Amino acid sequence: MLEIIFSPRSLAVVGASPDPERLGHVVLKNIVVNGYAGHIYPIHPTATVVLDLPAYPSITALPEIPDLVVIVIPPQHVLPVVEECGKKGVKGLVVITAGFKEVGGEGKELERLLLAKVREYGMRMIGPNCLGIIDTVSDLNVSFAGMMPLSGEIALMSQSGAMCTAILDWSRAQGIGFSRFVSLGNKADVDEVALLHAWNRDPHSKVILAYLEGITDGPGFIAAAREVTQQTPVIAIKSGTTAAGTRAASSHTGSLAGSEAAYEAAFSQSGILRARTMNELFDLAMIFSYQPLIQGNRVAIVTNAGGPGILATDAVERSGLKMASFTPETLTFLRANLPVTANIFNPIDIIGDARSDRYRIGLEAALADPNVDAAIILLTPQARSDLIETCLVIIELSRTYGKPVATSFMGGYSLGPSLEMLSVNKIPNYTFPERAVQSLSSMVQYSTWRQRPAPTYRSFDVDKERVRKLFSSVRESGRVELGEIEAREVIDAYGMRLPQSRLASSPDEAAKIAAEIGFPVVMKISSPDILHKSDIGGVKVGVSDASSARDTYELIEYRARKYSPGARIWGVLVQEMVRTGREMLVGVTRDPQFGPLVAVGMGGIYVEVLKDLAFRLAPISELEVSEQLRSIRTYPLLRGVRGEQPADIAAIEETVLRVSQLVTDFPEIVEMDINPLVVHNQGEGAIVLDARIILK
Amino acid sequence: MLEIIFSPRSLAVVGASPDPERLGHVVLKNIVVNGYAGHIYPIHPTATVVLDLPAYPSITALPEIPDLVVIVIPPQHVLPVVEECGKKGVKGLVVITAGFKEVGGEGKELERLLLAKVREYGMRMIGPNCLGIIDTVSDLNVSFAGMMPLSGEIALMSQSGAMCTAILDWSRAQGIGFSRFVSLGNKADVDEVALLHAWNRDPHSKVILAYLEGITDGPGFIAAAREVTQQTPVIAIKSGTTAAGTRAASSHTGSLAGSEAAYEAAFSQSGILRARTMNELFDLAMIFSYQPLIQGNRVAIVTNAGGPGILATDAVERSGLKMASFTPETLTFLRANLPVTANIFNPIDIIGDARSDRYRIGLEAALADPNVDAAIILLTPQARSDLIETCLVIIELSRTYGKPVATSFMGGYSLGPSLEMLSVNKIPNYTFPERAVQSLSSMVQYSTWRQRPAPTYRSFDVDKERVRKLFSSVRESGRVELGEIEAREVIDAYGMRLPQSRLASSPDEAAKIAAEIGFPVVMKISSPDILHKSDIGGVKVGVSDASSARDTYELIEYRARKYSPGARIWGVLVQEMVRTGREMLVGVTRDPQFGPLVAVGMGGIYVEVLKDLAFRLAPISELEVSEQLRSIRTYPLLRGVRGEQPADIAAIEETVLRVSQLVTDFPEIVEMDINPLVVHNQGEGAIVLDARIILK
Repeated sequence: MLEIIFSPRSLAVVGASPDPERLGHVVLKNIVVNGYAGHIYPIHPTATVVLDLPAYPSITALPEIPDLVVIVIPPQHVLPVVEECGKKGVKGLVVITAGFKEVGGEGKELERLLLAKVREYGMRMIGPNCLGIIDTVSDLNVSFAGMMPLSGEIALMSQSGAMCTAILDWSRAQGIGFSRFVSLGNKADVDEVALLHAWNRDPHSKVILAYLEGITDGPGFIAAAREVTQQTPVIAIKSGTTAAGTRAASSHTGSLAGSEAAYEAAFSQSGILRARTMNELFDLAMIFSYQPLIQGNRVAIVTNAGGPGILATDAVERSGLKMASFTPETLTFLRANLPVTANIFNPIDIIGDARSDRYRIGLEAALADPNVDAAIILLTPQARSDLIETCLVIIELSRTYGKPVATSFMGGYSLGPSLEMLSVNKIPNYTFPERAVQSLSSMVQYSTWRQRPAPTYRSFDVDKERVRKLFSSVRESGRVELGEIEAREVIDAYGMRLPQSRLASSPDEAAKIAAEIGFPVVMKISSPDILHKSDIGGVKVGVSDASSARDTYELIEYRARKYSPGARIWGVLVQEMVRTGREMLVGVTRDPQFGPLVAVGMGGIYVEVLKDLAFRLAPISELEVSEQLRSIRTYPLLRGVRGEQPADIAAIEETVLRVSQLVTDFPEIVEMDINPLVVHNQGEGAIVLDARIILK
Repeated sequence: MLEIIFSPRSLAVVGASPDPERLGHVVLKNIVVNGYAGHIYPIHPTATVVLDLPAYPSITALPEIPDLVVIVIPPQHVLPVVEECGKKGVKGLVVITAGFKEVGGEGKELERLLLAKVREYGMRMIGPNCLGIIDTVSDLNVSFAGMMPLSGEIALMSQSGAMCTAILDWSRAQGIGFSRFVSLGNKADVDEVALLHAWNRDPHSKVILAYLEGITDGPGFIAAAREVTQQTPVIAIKSGTTAAGTRAASSHTGSLAGSEAAYEAAFSQSGILRARTMNELFDLAMIFSYQPLIQGNRVAIVTNAGGPGILATDAVERSGLKMASFTPETLTFLRANLPVTANIFNPIDIIGDARSDRYRIGLEAALADPNVDAAIILLTPQARSDLIETCLVIIELSRTYGKPVATSFMGGYSLGPSLEMLSVNKIPNYTFPERAVQSLSSMVQYSTWRQRPAPTYRSFDVDKERVRKLFSSVRESGRVELGEIEAREVIDAYGMRLPQSRLASSPDEAAKIAAEIGFPVVMKISSPDILHKSDIGGVKVGVSDASSARDTYELIEYRARKYSPGARIWGVLVQEMVRTGREMLVGVTRDPQFGPLVAVGMGGIYVEVLKDLAFRLAPISELEVSEQLRSIRTYPLLRGVRGEQPADIAAIEETVLRVSQLVTDFPEIVEMDINPLVVHNQGEGAIVLDARIILK
């Protein structure tokens, strides 16, 4: 897929001017000088030769139909050319020209027309408003970038062209290479989802990097990423995550930035590794593209200096990796072959006067040990250090044992040729030890993701039809918010437990219902117009006899009329008083890009103060809900501390899954809260005490 | 102070061999070739000339008494030389020789003798077991390092010699320079405290960096750092903070690594900035040594590309800085002078084709704006970029306006000379924007620290004598743990409130006391041998009448005898039942390096689950206790949420300060817990319900 763009047999450049100052000339030159082997056709209204190539006045005038047409002409001329391409049967486009959606107004309309044309003729298009694309596998540089990237096994997509330029420039200096390098621009047609599909199982790319500002099709993105990450790690940096960043992003590309929680959930549910900084993005890119995937989390460290060894050990513990415990054989071997002053326990300290032979002893012992999954080699340059020989040892042993290794040769001035040697031989080197550790830790995270079973989804037997009818009647009555009784009906239709509850429309009826349910009861005003019932004194708990029930009815109704004049009042709800339990909250908001985002956490004041909620996007799998619940900080309280009985965790999970099914079935639910969900002890279930539902 | 070591007028090198392979030769050569201007005397038993300098057989044979003597001979010969130095009146020593404390056993004893000698003659000594010292101000390189650092305004001390080597090597490549560069080695005499004092108000050092593994004198370190950080920022990286890291540290230097919480508290209470990684250490070192101190937290960003602008904006928000809001004048100026496609709001986007003139417009407008405290300049190299001219603009404007600036020129390959130009002109440049932001954020943190008023300590009128006597009697009885009644006495003597409470020694007496206190009461077994009274059913709350009081006495006593046979039982404590309130915990542990560490946090199950405790080292100042309490996550619960009354925060603070005074007065208290401290509403005080105290 998309080969027509990345590996075209022939291409034309519309706007390929003979004037070296023009962008079209620069793009053509990049194609020519970087060794593209297919036919290249410059298109120019008047020139007959450009860069020694015969030029043509139009696509129609060409001797063959090119696979790819690159467009670098003013925006007002783009549509007719695309129309011509479509008619002639061209299938691939790269539109570098700017002046479309990003300028708003007319540009937006122009882009809509452009996309319609592309779709009409079944073409695929990169851009508009992009730097172009570079493919080192087919030696194709269709861009106005100032240089060609080195060849490598990293595929990169970026929504920012300037970020492409910066990365290109920086990566050359670092010796980091790419297989594909794509500036997405306005991504009118080909977007991150299309590229993920195109790069799935790409034999030339061991890792995919994405610089994202906003995502157009959230669910499509998750589905594509979930598939791709089964074979290939995807590392993303998402900018525009803070309020101010989002404002900056909007002024920049006009793409919706999406809520931070939704992106976190999307990345976690699709196995995407998130880099927090550009440095981290490339730290990870290096280890994933250079080294085999890690199979466990036990790390050995070999060092010629104590201090860096301690730094690295600290970092291992903090990052959730484990310091490997060596087998007795390994220890015996190390004891026999290293000087007595060496430390043979992990970290292996081979002492400052170590040469490559001692690095061989330490590293080979570590890599051969079945208790070791990866090794980090630290080196501070000392008088006796033989850097090149040490590199050779590391390169040889890493290939022999097939376990990932990373190095931290600490220094710069006297390391020069050794750093290049490591880079060329695909040993990721980090200036300081902490980043080597962090990168291995992300590898473990990805490796764990790959080993997860395929997601399974529970489907509950629910009364969908009843909810559909209810929603219709709510809409017909011109409301978007459900009243309490309606919300209860939805909860009931989706199989969640509710306290017994009936509506009373007079004090006497309230007393009668309460007697039937059994004292004590809770009484609440019932009105579609009063959202926060407690705030106006519209809720009373522990009503203990018939006389109080009558008084309470009157009081609550009086308050409702007084504090919410004009509110429709349906009566007073008389409810079973549920015995106490842990109070949880299950909430839903609808993210504009990713759809329903389901939150779970402890209810009550702790939600506000601790903000201890975990989010997942619906539909939620069985494994995901389990992880979701376990990721809240107060989870130990559910398991029970100090001899308390554990809470019915299965009942909480089931509630979340039923809510997930509900909001997936009904996209018109834009907001929903179950608060509190009273959770009893293990095996005793959970009861929804109150619920709010708001429709679109 | 320590000028004798860092700026000696003359020096001798004991062990200065003519053999270029010997360490003594390397050290002498470093002194000679790096331009030291004072007299240099090689000392060697047989050679008469070393490196063209006349050599002498001993210190005694020298024509003058050198300020500094450097010792590079085998450990067994060190003591006699030091004795000779002392007798001749030498005052400064650098002992490079290894084989002392770090090898254990005899080495440890040798170091003890060495230090005794040094003290006896009033000398000061760096080492033993170190790389040496380098001082670029006096062109002094007394070390076996492979190179001289660049000159700069960063003073560095490191407990790891290898880290020194690595930093030296790396800093040369980065263009980062130092004023003083010290390998502390075993720091038998001169340690981090002595160096902090020595470098206080050093006109050549704008920032002090410390690589720490362990600290010998915690309180001394805090006192010194507190003083120094009033003038000079101190940035520390502390390794050996995790359990595994600590083990690695012990095998490395034998220094105690100290608890993580104690270090955090020590750094926070003395204004030290903590770097988490080596990268961060130098990120901060650059901005502090290159730029003026920031005066507020409002940042302007000038960029020629949208993507990096968003990244930087996100980072600003996350780091607690603020994006500056420009004045109307600034906006008018920018609107009038930048192209219409530019973004004139912060971040100022001057668009990809910007040259230095547009950087001047954007940056000058930002720096001149009174709402801006610092500026970050982002540049991705584009076709029209004029890097050198842009550097000149930045250098000029940063000097004119005196506000700190940082740059992120993103790239590498085509940036070469511009990066060097920035570095030479003291503009800190960061590969990617996030690190520039993080560095400014640390500057704000330090600037805030400098503006703090001097700490004030409350001294409460307490009955110290009563506690002293009580502790004596506890020790005389051969115990270390106080019984409950004893602990109550201590709490009372230090002016903290307790519930009414009396000891009953029979069921009838219990009933009588309970009636006098007023029902309901709490009853607890009283025994010096039973620590966790609840666990054995030794506590009963809500005892509501005389008959229950009698029953409870019998039951509790029975359980205590059954579950803790052999425990001494003093009777049953009958206590006033305190009305409920927020339950807090105030605890103390004694850190081996830093002394008493006082914790405060919510009590009950939340301590265990959320680990929401804040720590400070005693003695705690009024401002510190206030910050301590505000730094716990559950602090909003104390202020009151959802219309609750606020808790008596002043009473909690006072309790912490009284505990701080107690544990400062009595260093023999190694552990103490007030749990729970029941805190009532504002103005209503707090009551200690239970306390444990353990003595050394």
